[in-house]
Amino acid sequence: MAQLEAQDLAQAVIDRMTDCKEPRFKEVMTALIRHAHAFVREVQLTPDEWMTAIQFLTATGKMCDEKRQEFILLSDTLGISMLVVAIEQAKGAAALKDRPEIRGATEATVQGPFFWPGAPQLELGADIGEGNAGEPAYYHGRVTDTAGKPVADCVLDVWSGDGEGFYDMQKGPDAGMALRAQFRTDHDGNYRFWSIRPSYYPVPADGPVGKMLHRMGRHPNRPGHMHTMLQAPGHERLITHLFVSDSPYLDSDAVFGVRNSLIVDFEKHAPGKAPDGRSMNKPFYTATYDFKLVPSAA
Amino acid sequence: MAQLEAQDLAQAVIDRMTDCKEPRFKEVMTALIRHAHAFVREVQLTPDEWMTAIQFLTATGKMCDEKRQEFILLSDTLGISMLVVAIEQAKGAAALKDRPEIRGATEATVQGPFFWPGAPQLELGADIGEGNAGEPAYYHGRVTDTAGKPVADCVLDVWSGDGEGFYDMQKGPDAGMALRAQFRTDHDGNYRFWSIRPSYYPVPADGPVGKMLHRMGRHPNRPGHMHTMLQAPGHERLITHLFVSDSPYLDSDAVFGVRNSLIVDFEKHAPGKAPDGRSMNKPFYTATYDFKLVPSAA
Repeated sequence: MAQLEAQDLAQAVIDRMTDCKEPRFKEVMTALIRHAHAFVREVQLTPDEWMTAIQFLTATGKMCDEKRQEFILLSDTLGISMLVVAIEQAKGAAALKDRPEIRGATEATVQGPFFWPGAPQLELGADIGEGNAGEPAYYHGRVTDTAGKPVADCVLDVWSGDGEGFYDMQKGPDAGMALRAQFRTDHDGNYRFWSIRPSYYPVPADGPVGKMLHRMGRHPNRPGHMHTMLQAPGHERLITHLFVSDSPYLDSDAVFGVRNSLIVDFEKHAPGKAPDGRSMNKPFYTATYDFKLVPSAA
Repeated sequence: MAQLEAQDLAQAVIDRMTDCKEPRFKEVMTALIRHAHAFVREVQLTPDEWMTAIQFLTATGKMCDEKRQEFILLSDTLGISMLVVAIEQAKGAAALKDRPEIRGATEATVQGPFFWPGAPQLELGADIGEGNAGEPAYYHGRVTDTAGKPVADCVLDVWSGDGEGFYDMQKGPDAGMALRAQFRTDHDGNYRFWSIRPSYYPVPADGPVGKMLHRMGRHPNRPGHMHTMLQAPGHERLITHLFVSDSPYLDSDAVFGVRNSLIVDFEKHAPGKAPDGRSMNKPFYTATYDFKLVPSAA
C-alpha cells in the first residue's frame, strides 16, 4: 500500500505507464505530468485555487461550439500556439544545413480560431469584400517555391474580419460565410482578389479567456491582418497572416503572432483605375505580397 | 515590432502582466506560463499533437454536466488532485511545530467527482444501503478533535458506489440519490449508519479520460471506499475515504488516493444480532473508524 507524498506523486503517475505501447505518447505524457506537478508544487496550489482552475477549464470547454474555439483562444493568448508554430519553424531552420534550398521561405504564424473549412471557391480577381464594412483593398502577388519557381494551381484560402474587426463567425448563429474564399493561383503562380483592409480587433473577450486576460491586466487586441493558408502538391502547407503595417497593436498582439517579414504596406489610392483595370469610385488600398513555399522533403 | 523566438515567448507572455492587480494570480499564471512553455519546448510538440490536445480538452469540457466532471477525473487520474491534498496536508505538518495539538489528525484524500450536494439528512443509525446492490455494512465510530475531545453535532456526509461499483450519478438522467446521506454526531461525537460494503470500481472510462488511461496502458480501477466529508464549527473541514482493507487495487488506485491510515478492516459476521441491536437475516460487515479533526487556528 503506497503512501505517496507530494514530491513522489509525479513519478508514481509516470510509473503507471509501464504498459504504454506508444513511445511518443509516453514521452509527451511523462513531460506533461512532470511539469504539471512541478507547477502545482512550485505555487503550492490550494484546494480553492484548484477548484477555480477546474471551473475555468469546464467553462472554457462549454464555450466551444462549431464557430467558437475557446481552448484555441486560450492557447493563443498564452503564447502556446505561436510557440508550436515557432518550434515547427525552428525545425525547418535546423534542416537548412541539409536543405539549403528552403532558405527564404515565408514565415508561418498562428491559424487562430476563425478558420471555417469549405469557403466558396472563386475565380481569381473576385471581390469578397463587397457588402461588408471596411475599405476596399486589392491583394495580389505570386506564389513560388524558395527557388523562385512559380507554384501553379496552389490553393489559397483567405479569411479575415471586416473593417470593424468582426468575423462572419461572430455574427450570430444564422450568419453565413463572409470575407473568406478559396482561390487557385494561375499557371504562373499569380493570385489576386479584392477584399477589405482588415481592422485591428479584440479576440472574443466575453468568455472565460476574456476574463483571464482582464485579470492579467492585458488588452485583447490583435493588429489588423489577412489570414492565408496555402496548399500545393509537392510543397509544405503554409498557414500565415499578412499584417497591416500601420495597424495599432503590432507591438502587443494578444496572441503573439506578429513576424516582421509578414508586415505589409497597404498603399492608399484615390478613386480611379485599380491595377486590375477595375474603376473605383472611392479610395482603395493595394497590398502586394509574394509567398515562398517550402518544397516537400523528398 | 517584436520578433519572438521560441525560447523568448514565455517571458513575453509573462511581461504582458505588468498591469495585473492581483499578486497571487500573477504568481500562479507566471509559473503556469513558464511550465507550459517548458513542456511544449521539451517535447517539441508538433502542430498535429497540439491539435490533438485542443480536441482532447474540448471533448473533456463537453463531457461535463451536473453529474459528470471529466476535468476533475482528469486531475484525479494524473495525480494532481491528490497532490493538492498532499500539499495542504504538508502545510498542516509544517504548522506542527507551532501547533503540536494537531498531531494525529485523520488524513485527507481526494473528493472525487461524485459528491452531490444536498443529500438527505437522516437520523443516526439509518440504513442508506437498503434496496441497493451490495452486502450490508454497519459503520460506526467517534469524531473527536486531535486532543480526543468529542465533536458533537459534526455534519458527516457519506457517499459511495454500490456493491457492484456504481454511483447513483452514473445510473442515468432520471436516477435519484442513493447511497448518500448527511448525519450529525451525537453529544458524545458518535456516529453510526448502515450502508453497503463498497466494491472496487472503474472510474468512468467511456469519455476522453478513459481513452487517455487506455493509451497510457493503465487500468481505471479504484479500491472500494466510503467517501466522507466532516464539517463542524471550530474545526477544519475534512474530506477523506475509508478504504476496504481486502479490496483489490489498494496498491494501484487509479487516482492515487490511498493513505495507509485510512484502510479499515470490514469484519464479516454471520446472520444474527448487529451491534446496534438490529436483527440481520443475512451476513453483514462492521467497520469501525474514529475521525480526528484539526481545531481551526485561532
